[in-house]
Order: sequence, then C-alpha cells, then structure tokens
Amino acid sequence: MHKLLPTLALLISLSAQAEPRATGDLGLVIEREDGAALIINTTGHKQLAKIEGLGDLSHASVVFSRDQRYAYVFGRDGGLSKIDLLQDQLARRIVQAGNSIGGAISQDGKLIAVSNYEPGGVKVFAADTLELVADIPAEYAPGKRSKVVGLVDAPGQRFVFSLFDAGEIWMLDMRDPHKPAIEKFKNIGKQPYDALMSPEGRFYIAGLFGESGLALLDLWDTAAGVRRILPNYGKDDEKLPVYKMPHLEGWAMAGDWLFAPAIGKHEVLVINKQDWTLHKAIPVAGQPVFVMARPDARQVWVNFAMPDNNQLQVIDAKDLTISTTLTPGKVVLHMEFTPRGEQVWVALRDDNQLVVYDTANLHEITRLPAHHPNGIFFSARAHKIGF
Amino acid sequence: MHKLLPTLALLISLSAQAEPRATGDLGLVIEREDGAALIINTTGHKQLAKIEGLGDLSHASVVFSRDQRYAYVFGRDGGLSKIDLLQDQLARRIVQAGNSIGGAISQDGKLIAVSNYEPGGVKVFAADTLELVADIPAEYAPGKRSKVVGLVDAPGQRFVFSLFDAGEIWMLDMRDPHKPAIEKFKNIGKQPYDALMSPEGRFYIAGLFGESGLALLDLWDTAAGVRRILPNYGKDDEKLPVYKMPHLEGWAMAGDWLFAPAIGKHEVLVINKQDWTLHKAIPVAGQPVFVMARPDARQVWVNFAMPDNNQLQVIDAKDLTISTTLTPGKVVLHMEFTPRGEQVWVALRDDNQLVVYDTANLHEITRLPAHHPNGIFFSARAHKIGF
Repeated sequence: MHKLLPTLALLISLSAQAEPRATGDLGLVIEREDGAALIINTTGHKQLAKIEGLGDLSHASVVFSRDQRYAYVFGRDGGLSKIDLLQDQLARRIVQAGNSIGGAISQDGKLIAVSNYEPGGVKVFAADTLELVADIPAEYAPGKRSKVVGLVDAPGQRFVFSLFDAGEIWMLDMRDPHKPAIEKFKNIGKQPYDALMSPEGRFYIAGLFGESGLALLDLWDTAAGVRRILPNYGKDDEKLPVYKMPHLEGWAMAGDWLFAPAIGKHEVLVINKQDWTLHKAIPVAGQPVFVMARPDARQVWVNFAMPDNNQLQVIDAKDLTISTTLTPGKVVLHMEFTPRGEQVWVALRDDNQLVVYDTANLHEITRLPAHHPNGIFFSARAHKIGF
Repeated sequence: MHKLLPTLALLISLSAQAEPRATGDLGLVIEREDGAALIINTTGHKQLAKIEGLGDLSHASVVFSRDQRYAYVFGRDGGLSKIDLLQDQLARRIVQAGNSIGGAISQDGKLIAVSNYEPGGVKVFAADTLELVADIPAEYAPGKRSKVVGLVDAPGQRFVFSLFDAGEIWMLDMRDPHKPAIEKFKNIGKQPYDALMSPEGRFYIAGLFGESGLALLDLWDTAAGVRRILPNYGKDDEKLPVYKMPHLEGWAMAGDWLFAPAIGKHEVLVINKQDWTLHKAIPVAGQPVFVMARPDARQVWVNFAMPDNNQLQVIDAKDLTISTTLTPGKVVLHMEFTPRGEQVWVALRDDNQLVVYDTANLHEITRLPAHHPNGIFFSARAHKIGF
C-alpha cells in the first residue's frame, strides 16, 4: 500500500465530516428508555445524530455552553454528560453523585452546577473539563443533609437552590470559584420541591410540597428575605389526587401575567406580576404539568397529567381563555418553542414521535421518529438567564 | 513532485480551516471607513476575520440567520451583504436600492426585508439567495413615495415600518410571500423618524420628528389604531440644539419601565409600561443616544451625542439613579451586551478600539483593535423578536 494512502484516507474522512454546521438552530431530544439523546435541527426538521451511553434519563435536563457547541445533560443517576453538537459525539461523561435532579450553567459559561438528592448538595464543575471546582454539601444541621431541588443560575455568577428537607433557600456566589460564598434563607416553608426564576433573573419562586403558598426571593433585595405569596396556592380543598407534581421551571411569564399550573386542580392560574395576587383561574382539560408561553407571549401552551395527557391546550394570553385543544398523540410529555416562537416541538412518548406545529395556524408541520421522547431542549437556551 | 502531494496539500488545507466553530458567541463589528466588518468571538475576546467590500457603512445594521451562520449587513448605499460566519467570507452581495436605512429578518428566517429612502419603499428578499421576493413601493399618494424608517419584524411573518414623508405606519404580512398583504395606519403623526418594537413583539412605537409625542401601535389590537403617547415627548421647551437624533431601537425595556432618551435634553426618561406615562426624568451627562438595558434589566447603559460622547453612564434600574460614569475613550458610538449580560462591548471610533467591560464590577476585561468601529452586533440577535 502506498505510504501516503492512510494519511490521505484520514484527511478525506476529516474533510467529509467537516461540512460546516452552525449551532443556532440545534436541539437535543432525550430518549428516556435508551439513555440516549438525538441532536436535531429546527430549520430542516432533521435528526442529525443519536448519542448513546448517557445513563438513566428517566428525569433529565439540559443546558448549553455559551457558544452553543456543547450540551450538558443531567441524568437521574448522577451522570453529567457533555455532548459535542458539532462532532456528534459524547465529549465527556462523569457520574458525580448517586441521585441527581438537575443543573445549571453559570452566567459566564465556565461553571456547571448540579443539584443532588444523594448525597444531598450541589457540586460545581469546570464546564470544559468537568473537573470538580466546588462541593457544597446541603448540611442544614449537624450530620443532616438535604435533597437539593430548584437549582437555577442567576446574574453575577450565582446559583440559587432549595433544600427540600430543610425548608431553606441558598444563594451560592461563585465569583471566586475557589471561595464559594453562601447566603442562606431559613424557614422559607415546608418541603420546597421545585423552583423557577423570572426571565430577567430577578425573582426566584419555590413551590412548597408541605404547605400552601409559594416562597419568593427578590434577588434585587435579598435583605428583605423570603416572603410568602399566593397563600392559597396548592391548598388541597377538593382532595383531588395529584397525579404529577407540576414543573415550575416551565411557568410562563407573559406580559403582565404569570401563568402557573394549579396543583391537583383542572386550572391554570393567572397571577398579577405587580403584586403577586391571583387574577383569574382558567378552567383547563386536566391537571396541568407544563404551562409555557410562546416567546411572543400571545399564546400559553399547557399539557396535562394522566388521564388527560393526550391533550394540549392553547390559552390566548390576551383574552385569558382556551383558544384551541389539540390531541396530537397518546402521551404528551414535553414541549419546546423555537426561539422566535414560530414552531413548537412536542414529545409524544408512547407514539415514539416528535410532532412539530406551526404556532400561527396550529397546523402540523411534520413528525419525526424518536424512541420514547421525554424532553426537548433547544440551543437558544444558552442565551437565557435562570435555567 | 509526487502525484498525490497536491491533493494532500488541498486536503490538509481543508482540514485546517475546518476546525469546528460554533456560532452562539460570535459577533460582527462594523468598520465604517473601511466598508468592512470584523467577525469576533465573545468567549475568547478574539478577532477571527475581517470581511471587506461591504460598501458604504456610514450607517449600518445587522441581522442574523436563525442558525446563526449568516449575518446580513444593511449599508447606507442600498447594499445588502450576506456574510458567512463559519467560512469567513462574503457569501453574496447585492445593491438593492440607492439609499437604504436598515432591515429585518422574518420570524421563520426565510425573508430579509430592507427599508429604503431612495426609491422609498421596502424590498423583501429570499434569505438564502438574496433574490427579490416582493417590492413594496411606499407610495402614499399618486406618484409620491416616502422614505421608509423604523422597519422591524413582528410575529406571524410580519414586518412593520413607518413612512417619514407620509406620517403613516404600515404592517406588511408576508405569510404568503407571493401575496404580500399591507395594512395601513394613516395620520399617525408628522415625520416618524425611527421606531422600536417591545421585546415580545407586541408594541410598535415610532418617534416623531415633526411634532411631539410618540405613535403607539398595539399589534394585539390593531383595530384600535395608532394612538399618541407621552404628548410632551420631544417638545422643544429649552431650545437646545439637537446634536444627534437618538436611536429608538436601543430603547430599554427593563422590568416595569421603558427607558428612553429625551430629545435635545440631558435626561433619560423613565416611562411606565402599564399606562405609557412619564414616571421620572433622570439627569444625565449629555444628550443621550443609545439607552440600553443589560439583559437582566438591573443596569441601563447610556452613551451621548457630542460634546459628551466620551462618556458612558450606568443607571441602576432599581434606584433609577446614575450609579457610575465611565470615560473609556474619545467617542463612544455603540455598545452591545452579551446575551446573558456579563459583558458589554463598546465601540470607540477615534481610539480605533473596542473595549470590553465586566458589567458586574465595571472593570475592563480587554481592548481589541478595530478601525473606526461604529456598530457591534452579536449573533444572539438571531433569536430575538423585533430587530
């Protein structure tokens, strides 16, 4: 064989895979059963690659590097996987805890924080190498560690999270990565189970499993401490069984309103952002799970817990009424809007499909195969605060 | 010479330039005098390439394709240039009018609209080929065409723009590219000279050169027509010479407030978004030009017309007072925040420099050379509505 041929073959192979790919219209779809993720493109509605070996993804979330080259997948098993969206490969993977619930990326993109159940706490890793930078045990009393939930990033290299077992909110300042500073807010309410950050990164709101109401921390006025809002939220008047605790991350801030799922009731709540009071309860088809605003804030899309999880409802954010009910498949698990809102992608677990809608006329654009999809995350999240 | 060597050299060259580049942290810096643009990277604070041959960029604006691979540059001379940010080259260029002022990209990324002074109107091009799709002369009376200003995109494949000579606002619906539909709003006020869209794409606000006040169109209620807000805005009480008409595109929507430059006065106006009334006038160092909010809405940065154009002031959006005054160089022309707000890049025309600030502590991160820079545009704009 000619001595140059192997080199030549390698170079041809390198050149072939080097078709330029931009990263603004990419996304990751989690395939729960396979421990895998699909890299997709929202312009051509194409599946570009399948990345395997991501561990237990029965609960998974994803953040993106600031250049949108890498996706970081947080798995249920404590796995933290770094996927290269340009080279269609798993760049790195560590198992950093026994049981994990989610994560976030710092404002400058250099740090990845993971919230863990077991052992309870937050670990912070370098985004490039996944080496450990800081270990923050959620020790709220001698020898007692809490599960950590509701971890989000905040402006100023901070992370905010809640301690389920302790009823506390902690704010972690990582401006100096070697000297993490923690501010603790105690007695914020029983069993915070999830949280959300307002889109600009100012208001951190935790849901309470152990009592009614929500815990609000204003990051522009931390001296005021955490206060309770919506005191009747989650109060179990009707004793309906709660089939699935709604996600708070997907709460919709649209115009003057915050749209939130009522717990155990067939209602979406419309909350006044000025004074955090309840403005209206909109009757919906079932127990809402994700309540998400189209980026232009005119539509709010809602999916449901079983037995109504075959439906999707669209609320008109101007009239505060249901404008449309869609039944795209058996089990609607998740949805994600393209950054300017012209499309929404919906994960249909039991149909093994993704369905893409044109949000202007609610027509189906296309369907793509995906094996038991349970989460959709687009790369534009790289540019958002509070995920 | 070995017969395989030329092929080998070509392939090595291809492989070398094929180092994967993600597009989430890129930007374009306009070099006015050179008719050129620099491709920069905000993670490494690097200049990646210089693209020349872009014509007259004495006034220029930029939009990005939805995948963030291409930047479209609108030049003063009617030039429309498409730059490939992955391959560091001018992909295509046309001169589509005699005198142009700006442009926008449709929600789905497939259409580029350009607003022209001469001949007055809007032309719409295919984003991929730059072939003409629609020509909309701004003919407001038989044989009379108006200069077009304040062109922005709106949800639902629409573009909104103002007719300077006619005192009209037009809404162009391009859902069917071959059947453009136009809705016209007449008698909106004398000589609209620029406009802005609120971040969610709902409120279109035009500034009036010929009289005081602002023209507001609520796209959620177009039947209500255009109404006048802030009736005293621009009223020339103090007869100060206006050195430069402030840009409206850079107006800052932050929390409950809209921050706007007062015309000809040393003030930034704080406007209540609920009822469009004036809440406060903040005294500043000079006649404000750009008034821009950090993405987390806590800071508002202001630059000035001459003779105060060596200064930058930072307003604390909580206290509504000036927190800092910076003097980075001789002439501050433009600024752009990174999408999550940790950096701001500032164009210093006469220093031939860009200065990058850490917005948390207001320290300089670095300075980069740029020849008479007059505009900075980051690729995250691809995901925004109303530019």
